Amino acid sequence: MGKILNDPQVLKAIKGLHLPDDAIVQTDTWMYGTDRDSDIETHKFMQSLLYARAPHNHPDSNQYAFPLPFSPVFDLFLGKVVRIDDLATGGKEDGLAYHTAPERPMEHCVENEYHHDLHKTAPRSDLKPLRVLQPEGPSFKVSDGNCVEWQKWRFRVGFNFREGMTIHDVRYAGRPLFYRLSVSEMTVPYGDPRSPFHRKQAFDIGDCGAGSVANNLALGCDCLGSIYYFSGHLNDESGTPIPAPNVICMHEQDAGIGWKHTNHRTGNAAITRARVLVLQSIITVGNYEYIFAWHFMQNGNVELETRATGILSTHLIDAGKTSEWGNVVSPGVLAPNHQHLFSLRIDPMLDGPLNTVIQEESIPVPQSEEENPHGNAWRVVKTPFETSGHADANPLANRVFKMVNENVTNPISGNPVGYKLIPQPCQLILAGNNSVVRRRARFAEHHLWVTPYRDHEFWAGGKWTNQSLDEVDGVRDYASRRDDVSNKDVVVWTTFGMTHNPRVEDFPVMPCEISTLRLTPADFFEGNPALDVPRSVQEVNGSVLKVEIKLYTK
Amino acid sequence: MGKILNDPQVLKAIKGLHLPDDAIVQTDTWMYGTDRDSDIETHKFMQSLLYARAPHNHPDSNQYAFPLPFSPVFDLFLGKVVRIDDLATGGKEDGLAYHTAPERPMEHCVENEYHHDLHKTAPRSDLKPLRVLQPEGPSFKVSDGNCVEWQKWRFRVGFNFREGMTIHDVRYAGRPLFYRLSVSEMTVPYGDPRSPFHRKQAFDIGDCGAGSVANNLALGCDCLGSIYYFSGHLNDESGTPIPAPNVICMHEQDAGIGWKHTNHRTGNAAITRARVLVLQSIITVGNYEYIFAWHFMQNGNVELETRATGILSTHLIDAGKTSEWGNVVSPGVLAPNHQHLFSLRIDPMLDGPLNTVIQEESIPVPQSEEENPHGNAWRVVKTPFETSGHADANPLANRVFKMVNENVTNPISGNPVGYKLIPQPCQLILAGNNSVVRRRARFAEHHLWVTPYRDHEFWAGGKWTNQSLDEVDGVRDYASRRDDVSNKDVVVWTTFGMTHNPRVEDFPVMPCEISTLRLTPADFFEGNPALDVPRSVQEVNGSVLKVEIKLYTK
Repeated sequence: MGKILNDPQVLKAIKGLHLPDDAIVQTDTWMYGTDRDSDIETHKFMQSLLYARAPHNHPDSNQYAFPLPFSPVFDLFLGKVVRIDDLATGGKEDGLAYHTAPERPMEHCVENEYHHDLHKTAPRSDLKPLRVLQPEGPSFKVSDGNCVEWQKWRFRVGFNFREGMTIHDVRYAGRPLFYRLSVSEMTVPYGDPRSPFHRKQAFDIGDCGAGSVANNLALGCDCLGSIYYFSGHLNDESGTPIPAPNVICMHEQDAGIGWKHTNHRTGNAAITRARVLVLQSIITVGNYEYIFAWHFMQNGNVELETRATGILSTHLIDAGKTSEWGNVVSPGVLAPNHQHLFSLRIDPMLDGPLNTVIQEESIPVPQSEEENPHGNAWRVVKTPFETSGHADANPLANRVFKMVNENVTNPISGNPVGYKLIPQPCQLILAGNNSVVRRRARFAEHHLWVTPYRDHEFWAGGKWTNQSLDEVDGVRDYASRRDDVSNKDVVVWTTFGMTHNPRVEDFPVMPCEISTLRLTPADFFEGNPALDVPRSVQEVNGSVLKVEIKLYTK
Repeated sequence: MGKILNDPQVLKAIKGLHLPDDAIVQTDTWMYGTDRDSDIETHKFMQSLLYARAPHNHPDSNQYAFPLPFSPVFDLFLGKVVRIDDLATGGKEDGLAYHTAPERPMEHCVENEYHHDLHKTAPRSDLKPLRVLQPEGPSFKVSDGNCVEWQKWRFRVGFNFREGMTIHDVRYAGRPLFYRLSVSEMTVPYGDPRSPFHRKQAFDIGDCGAGSVANNLALGCDCLGSIYYFSGHLNDESGTPIPAPNVICMHEQDAGIGWKHTNHRTGNAAITRARVLVLQSIITVGNYEYIFAWHFMQNGNVELETRATGILSTHLIDAGKTSEWGNVVSPGVLAPNHQHLFSLRIDPMLDGPLNTVIQEESIPVPQSEEENPHGNAWRVVKTPFETSGHADANPLANRVFKMVNENVTNPISGNPVGYKLIPQPCQLILAGNNSVVRRRARFAEHHLWVTPYRDHEFWAGGKWTNQSLDEVDGVRDYASRRDDVSNKDVVVWTTFGMTHNPRVEDFPVMPCEISTLRLTPADFFEGNPALDVPRSVQEVNGSVLKVEIKLYTK
């Protein structure tokens, strides 16, 4: 960092901005996305985005409200700045004349602080405390360092530099379900075509390492209730272990009504509340935060909840202008459009290692006197994956993917036992087919990939993503072998995420944007697995009646 | 009911089943869906589905495990059973020979109880209590009978026979957002083509009245924490008011992390927890339960969470057979495929009554040297509704619908202030275009409808749904007038729900199936509305550290 900020060219360029004398400039160093074949760069570069703190110069000032209009390129091999790229600060008004150079380009930027200590107004005062009390402690047990038991579930927790939190050997009532669950990759391509913004394409697993940037989850701020923490280890350049304390937390949550039925004949209600075991890890990748939480549910679901929060990566825009490549979220601050595309790797072992993946759709039966005289019928059409390959989400056809064990039949329904996944129908990667952005992230071209298990095949975007030109040895390559995946040890990869065209409300810090992927039993059990959850009763819940209100009567 | 169950033909048919002498038979009476034009029935009928209690004859026994193989048709005008329809009990194995008649057709059915008192095994014993404590009480205030104030939100709560809970005059920090929010209609068509199953098509708002079947939400069983109840009134046939106690409950929930950022330079984290105000109403429509909950969030979101639970409506199936029209969920019990399709009516008043609806999609820009040399760019393409009409979900194009006020500009971004809705990309109604099932529920043909506000236009499926042949004066009719909706008092209707092909796990009582619709500010505010939420701190949260665990060390 110091080598960039003390570089004479950089210092000179900063001087040209006419910032206050005491302005403190900071750098966000980005992995450098190579442009195209003809420009292959063998050196490793960092593209530095510069920001200034607000005038009061508090160390926790939100720099993203003061973006600088140029970007030094740093050569890691040479150890020096090799170039300064001008950044476009124009708007729609400038057409293709991208670069403008006002005399005092950042003069219209204003403080926009997220940190509580720096707010100019007091926090809202009408929020009363809400506490979660577990008088008998939590319902889970941990043994052997990383083995968790809770409500018929049993699994192991892992942590590594690249993926962060991983989940292993998941069983329910002793029956094997999943061998390994992990977030394999994530790419964040930006949609501003003006060079060098097109190079902004983060690979937060492959480039950064989700484990390496996992937060230390301090007690009381990240969870409520009775909280356990798991700590792990990272390593430095020489291989020396470095403790990574409190990188995963575990606690229980109440998730509302689990199931309910009222018998209208007797007036009797049967009701349970749903309890969830949550394993959470939070990573900070420069400006952004991702909160990954595995939810284990009494009804047999395993769910991955992802929350995107933190601060938008911003660029400078001239006063009064707007852009089609993003939204102005603070005076002079353009938040460019971008996508977040994750790959979840699911290695199932449903009642054993030999599983099959089946696509199911609900398709109307044509109206005919013989088969469908009243036109109300549909069929569930099943298409098994015979060889490795891919498929996309199609919610309008009610497309679901079932992982089944064809060797074990559900005695009630006669179907093979299985779990289903409904892929999130997110918009897939928008970059053009021949663009380097897309070539580096072929995993984001489809919502689902099915491959046979092979050792070392963990990386949806390829093992080496840093400055890659193509996704090499990634999930598209694994899947393109057309291997037999029928009744085999299969692996399922699903792409999820969002296109994020920023709102003003996403600044100066973004309210969590939540998405959830569910793995749901589908004829795996012989009935509702949560049937034996004790009834919800007031003696246990300890709820408090405030008052009963009659509508329309004073 | 008695007139059906004591009918001599019905008694004779029951006798033919060779049930135990003390068997108690009960009836679910269904609205009768008329078949087709040529069969127009001017009389009002009920189609009765019969079930038996389990042999021990407990009043809360799950009758749906013992479906009878015939269905009396009751004429409401004549006050008697006019016909008994045989019910198909065959499977795939029988091809189009739908009706079979084993000597003792229900002999293979077995008890399958949902009620806690009737379980044969003890409930799980390892679930420790979890309580929500609000030592200073809740953060909301109620005045004037039905006016709620909470965290800058202010709105009124309503309740009526047909829609149940309604929400009115929603404001945030004094600014008007929504004039009225209501679930307008819901249809549940079944996909079994074998007559008379094709007539199973519930309209739980128009036929039954969501208010008329709203549960009395007894303290402690439906919510945790500090709970308020709203009571309403219904009326009997003569118009006399009948109290409807505790039909809506209100409480606060913790919804996890609201926003977080850790400054990697200082190591300082800024974090808030999200608090949610929940208004919940639960309806029991015979076998099924629907839990509707409006969530008001500190980040400006208003969300409708719908949970489907309760018991599947079932038919008898011969021993050992399976069906393509549903799934066997208990011995002898076929749970037919069906859809749940709801219509949410949203009457916006974003900074005033004159609003416009704009469809937005994210569309890649073709790669070209001039505009998009690296192929990474996309444009947000905006298509306003000029006249009333419809549109569908298209998540793969990142299609969102914005309700905006073109007369008020966001001073930061320069965009009109607005809220966005991402329609749930549910499968739309599957019944054929000319089928009566579909003709009655045209609202379920599209995910979104835009109409101008007109008095009395509340009913997506038409005012009179009972035994309707067509959706008359429903949202399709409202929208087809091609009225001007640009900068007008508009109403937005969105269809959501699911195709439910039952799992074995959905029986004997179904774990809640959850779906959520979000109304999200999009350049309505000048920044994150939850920025001023106080930081999350241990002194307030009162969390409990259980233990810190080192992974991979014993």
